[in-house]
Amino acid sequence: MNLAHDLAWLRAGLALVLASTLGTAAADPLPSWRDGKSKQAIMEFVARVTLPGSPDFVPEPERIATFDNDGTLWAEQPAYFQLLFALDRVKTLAPQHPEWKTHEPFASLLKGDLKSALAGGEKAIVEILMATHAGMTSAEFEQIVTDWIATATHPTTGRPITGMVYQPMLELLAYLRANDFKTYIVSGGGIEFMRPWTERVYGIPPEQVVGSSIKSAFELRGDKPVLVRQPAVDFIDDKSGKPVGIQSHIGRRPIAAFGNSDGDLQMLQWTCLAEGARFCLYVRHDDADREWAYDRESHIGQLDQGLDQAEAHGWTVVSMKDDWSRIYP
Amino acid sequence: MNLAHDLAWLRAGLALVLASTLGTAAADPLPSWRDGKSKQAIMEFVARVTLPGSPDFVPEPERIATFDNDGTLWAEQPAYFQLLFALDRVKTLAPQHPEWKTHEPFASLLKGDLKSALAGGEKAIVEILMATHAGMTSAEFEQIVTDWIATATHPTTGRPITGMVYQPMLELLAYLRANDFKTYIVSGGGIEFMRPWTERVYGIPPEQVVGSSIKSAFELRGDKPVLVRQPAVDFIDDKSGKPVGIQSHIGRRPIAAFGNSDGDLQMLQWTCLAEGARFCLYVRHDDADREWAYDRESHIGQLDQGLDQAEAHGWTVVSMKDDWSRIYP
Repeated sequence: MNLAHDLAWLRAGLALVLASTLGTAAADPLPSWRDGKSKQAIMEFVARVTLPGSPDFVPEPERIATFDNDGTLWAEQPAYFQLLFALDRVKTLAPQHPEWKTHEPFASLLKGDLKSALAGGEKAIVEILMATHAGMTSAEFEQIVTDWIATATHPTTGRPITGMVYQPMLELLAYLRANDFKTYIVSGGGIEFMRPWTERVYGIPPEQVVGSSIKSAFELRGDKPVLVRQPAVDFIDDKSGKPVGIQSHIGRRPIAAFGNSDGDLQMLQWTCLAEGARFCLYVRHDDADREWAYDRESHIGQLDQGLDQAEAHGWTVVSMKDDWSRIYP
Repeated sequence: MNLAHDLAWLRAGLALVLASTLGTAAADPLPSWRDGKSKQAIMEFVARVTLPGSPDFVPEPERIATFDNDGTLWAEQPAYFQLLFALDRVKTLAPQHPEWKTHEPFASLLKGDLKSALAGGEKAIVEILMATHAGMTSAEFEQIVTDWIATATHPTTGRPITGMVYQPMLELLAYLRANDFKTYIVSGGGIEFMRPWTERVYGIPPEQVVGSSIKSAFELRGDKPVLVRQPAVDFIDDKSGKPVGIQSHIGRRPIAAFGNSDGDLQMLQWTCLAEGARFCLYVRHDDADREWAYDRESHIGQLDQGLDQAEAHGWTVVSMKDDWSRIYP
């Protein structure tokens, strides 16, 4: 133990906490976060790992922060937005698929009966995903997503779909990057569904997006090489898959992880149940007025075990209602 | 077409080519490359994509360069170095596996009879790889590789194994990075076999290494999360797998690719058979005195179709004998 270092860190940390508590607004990197425990915990952690001389100092290349997407960076109600994309695609593609009129889950979908369509459970969802996500080249799919994301609107708020991102999380991403963190998305959503727009919307480039994937195959069409998306699941980047995806794509263990559901629990465990300074945070959806309120009993974004684990390990739990002065940009 | 831009680019390009031809040694970023077509082609390409105002200017985030490893960045004779690692591991682990004394391919291996051991073909190699690469945690495997790479020596040259890297390629990596390229390894070798040392040896961090992988599984051992390496192939990053690995990990198409064998052909096609300024290069092993000489007929690092394609598409083919004044650091 190095006492001089510890004292230097304490002094610097104290100065920073005081500055944030006293509200030097001009310099506040997280203006949509209300002063309180959550904001303080974030800023204290960043100070600990970035201040030279801090006993918990982490060199820049190891400052890896991973973020879930659905429910953490943008909303996920009344359905995952990628599912809304798939439903729109089914409608667009229906004229080319007359057989869908009598084939479930498509028949119900095309009648606008989402509930019956999804009654087939995971099998129905996989069938919808494959019909809408496979069979084209990677470049064609990128264009399809780019076109959709530019015009899609949210079914209940009417906002542009990319306007459903959380302003406080955009500020957090920028704040971490300003402190030389490398920010990654680690999502159960499709990796190629996210990449066309994450740089513009979150400042996260394609090579820092980890997600679920279907298989693809290299083909030479004449002299033109293409990657053709295959109707077969390759990798599910959810639950126990998240640490696997992190290791595969990043090859380093994050020092900070951010999620909102039990699907993120293993990512938070992988990040925080380890030596050294670590930071784990759950976004809790408790704001029925400005967003949605759901947790232990929800079918989408269930947060049950995660809430217990957060308490047990002292992870930060953000109340959207109390901690965020603003939800959307 | 913008004539002013074109002229600016021509002028700047000409100045650069003249400077390199006339040999302003103090500023030469590639001192181990002899003046000639290969060096000139590299420097002209870098000038074209980096000079503001060039019609082929490429913004920094899109300057992705991918490098094969075995035979491109370091040697691969008389056997892939990862196979030498596996053989060393078999010897180390033998006391814990008395059954290997009578079980092929281990029995022959332990008698020092590599030829008989490998007579079982791919099946034998997979068995050796799984016995030596699976069954431990990711952290344990990283330590095993770190220990091996620190002490292993090459069977014929006696050099440290990391001393078998090519000095001209180290200079090329540094030159590209100095011009704001992001350099990646895209290798048929094991991703977790490379990551523990590529940063130190090549300046390439773990998140920029793409390679073959076995499956892994997340586990909580008490309160300690681990990733356990499973004896099952996950992904082979070779031939048609290379563009797939590139898309999965990087999500952008490279603008430059470097290889030495037919195993790299699809990566070079994916990179160079596309619109815009592109650069593809094959390292040709034609220096029996200082390294090895092999190409169309070789079992390791066969370069046959690739050579024909390089000629057909005007890709650069480096002669190790003529183009490199120095092989190893």
